[in-house]
Amino acid sequence: MILTVTLNTALDLTYRVPRLTPHSSHRVSEVRERPGGKGVNVARVLAALGHEVTVTGFAGGPAGEALRGALDGGVRDELVGCAGNTRRTVAVVDAASGDTTQFNEPGPLISPAEWSGFLTRYDELLRGAAAVALCGSLPPGVPVGAYAALVRQARAAGVPVLLDTSGEALRRGVAARPDLIKPNTAELAELTGARDPLPAALAARRRGAHAVVASLGPGGLLAATPEGIWQAAPPRALAGNPTGAGDSAVAGLLSGLAERLDWPERLARAVALSAATVTAPVAGEFDPRTYEQVRGSVVVTAGQPVSR
Amino acid sequence: MILTVTLNTALDLTYRVPRLTPHSSHRVSEVRERPGGKGVNVARVLAALGHEVTVTGFAGGPAGEALRGALDGGVRDELVGCAGNTRRTVAVVDAASGDTTQFNEPGPLISPAEWSGFLTRYDELLRGAAAVALCGSLPPGVPVGAYAALVRQARAAGVPVLLDTSGEALRRGVAARPDLIKPNTAELAELTGARDPLPAALAARRRGAHAVVASLGPGGLLAATPEGIWQAAPPRALAGNPTGAGDSAVAGLLSGLAERLDWPERLARAVALSAATVTAPVAGEFDPRTYEQVRGSVVVTAGQPVSR
Repeated sequence: MILTVTLNTALDLTYRVPRLTPHSSHRVSEVRERPGGKGVNVARVLAALGHEVTVTGFAGGPAGEALRGALDGGVRDELVGCAGNTRRTVAVVDAASGDTTQFNEPGPLISPAEWSGFLTRYDELLRGAAAVALCGSLPPGVPVGAYAALVRQARAAGVPVLLDTSGEALRRGVAARPDLIKPNTAELAELTGARDPLPAALAARRRGAHAVVASLGPGGLLAATPEGIWQAAPPRALAGNPTGAGDSAVAGLLSGLAERLDWPERLARAVALSAATVTAPVAGEFDPRTYEQVRGSVVVTAGQPVSR
Repeated sequence: MILTVTLNTALDLTYRVPRLTPHSSHRVSEVRERPGGKGVNVARVLAALGHEVTVTGFAGGPAGEALRGALDGGVRDELVGCAGNTRRTVAVVDAASGDTTQFNEPGPLISPAEWSGFLTRYDELLRGAAAVALCGSLPPGVPVGAYAALVRQARAAGVPVLLDTSGEALRRGVAARPDLIKPNTAELAELTGARDPLPAALAARRRGAHAVVASLGPGGLLAATPEGIWQAAPPRALAGNPTGAGDSAVAGLLSGLAERLDWPERLARAVALSAATVTAPVAGEFDPRTYEQVRGSVVVTAGQPVSR
C-alpha cells in the first residue's frame, strides 16, 4: 500500500463562466467539485495506475464530508476528522480565454489534540506502507516542523518518504533527511538560494534530501541522486493545462520508489504522467493513452554520477 | 407566524482578497459563510425585528446542510430536502476598491416528486401563517408557473401573499393576483414594457397585482395600491453597500402586511430597514440604531388615490 498525507485537504470547485468581468455578477454555467489537496490528487493518479493507496490528513465540516463522499472508489479513506471546516478552492475558468482565476480559502485551525490524534493514526498507517508522500501546505495550528517529525517517523519505520511542500515547512522537512523531495525551480531556489537548478538540487542534497527531483515545467525533470544525475524530458512540447502536472509527477516517482524501479524508469514514468495530465481534457486528470504513448519516448539523459 | 418561501436557497460565501487580479491566484484572507436566498434573508430581518418566522423551500446536499446548520436561532426551519446540492454563491470583495465580483452557481434540479412534496408542506404551513413571501428565482425542474400556483394556494387559504421575483416567473405569478409585488425598476419595465416607474406600477396592477411597491434604489419606494399612491424616501442619501437592501424592504412590507399597518407606516418601515442595511458594516445585515433613527424621518408623499 502507498500512503499519501494531505494535512490541508481541499474541496476543489471549478466554475466555468462565459467571460470573467471584475466587479460584475456571473452566472456559473458549469460547476465541478472534486476532492483536492496535493496528496489526494497524487492518490487519485496512483489508484488509476492500479496501486493500492490510502489517504490520510485532516477533513472536517461540510466541505470535509463532501470531499470524503467524493473520494475515488480505489482510494482508502483514513482521513482524521477535525472540528474546523476543510478549505475550498474556487477556480474560475473564463471560457472565452481559457484562463483561470483562483481563490484559495485558508485551511481549518487544527488543535493540539487533533494533531496528536493524527500522529497516532499516521504511525499505524506507516506499518502497512511501501512508501509515503507528504504533500502540500500546513493548515493553521499544525507546527511548522510537522513534516520533519513525519519524515523521522517514516524513516524510523523503514518506509521510503517523499516530501512535496515549500517554504519553511520544506526547509525543516529536508533537514530530517527525506528519501526524495520534488520542488519546482522557484521552491528549490527559495530553499537553497541557488537559481540554477543543478547547483540548487545539489545544495538541497547537502541540506539533507537523499535525492532531489526538480520539476522544470515543460522542460521535464532534473534528478540529483546518490546514483547519479539525470534529466528527463518529454519527446516534444505538449500544449494544455499544467494544473496537477506536478502531482502526477509525484505519483510517478512514488510508484517507482515503491516498486524500486531504477531512476531512468522512475523519471520516464513521472514525465509521461505529467505530460498526460497537461494534455488531458479535464484539469488534473491524466489521459491513459497519452501516458502509454509518451512513456516509451521520454528522453532521459545521464550526467556524471555524484558521490555523497 | 410569517412564512417566507425560498425555492432556490443558497449558501452565500464572501471571500475577501487584497486585490482581485484576473487570471492569477488569490489567497483568501477572510471567508464568511451565511444562509442565503432572498426569502432566507427576509426571514433573518423579520426575526431580528422580533417576528415569529418560518422558512421553507428546498435545501439539499452538503451546502444545504451547512445552510440549515447556520440558520438564525429565531428562524424556524421547515425547508424540504432535495437530492441535488443547494447552490453556493461566491462574492469576492476586493479590499483595495471595495468592489464585489459575484459568482452564482445554478440551483439543484428539483424532481416532480420533490416539487409535489413541497406543495404539501406549503399547504400545511399556510394554515398558521399571518402572511407569506415568495422570493427569488426558481431552481431547475420547478415549473415556471410555480409562483402562480403558490399565490393561488395562499389566496385560497386567506393568507396575504407578497411576490418578489423577476422575468417569466413574475409575469405568471402576477396573473394569479398576489396582494403585493416588489419589483425594482428594471424588473417592472421588463414586466410591463413601461420605463417610467409610475405608469409601469399602474400597468402591473392592471396585470393582476393588488398592490405594487417599486424600489427606486437610493430614491426609496413608490407604492401603487387600491388605497392610493405614495412615494417614500430616506431623509438623506446614505452611502454603503446596497446588498440585501431589497430583501430588507420586503421584510418591512411583509411585517406591515401581517400587522395590517397603513401604507405610509409600512413604507416608512421598509425604507428605514433598507437604509439601515445599506449603512450596516456587514453586507446584508441591518443596523438597528440606524433603523430606529431613520424610521421617524422617512419622507412619505401621497399622490392621488387610484381606483381599480
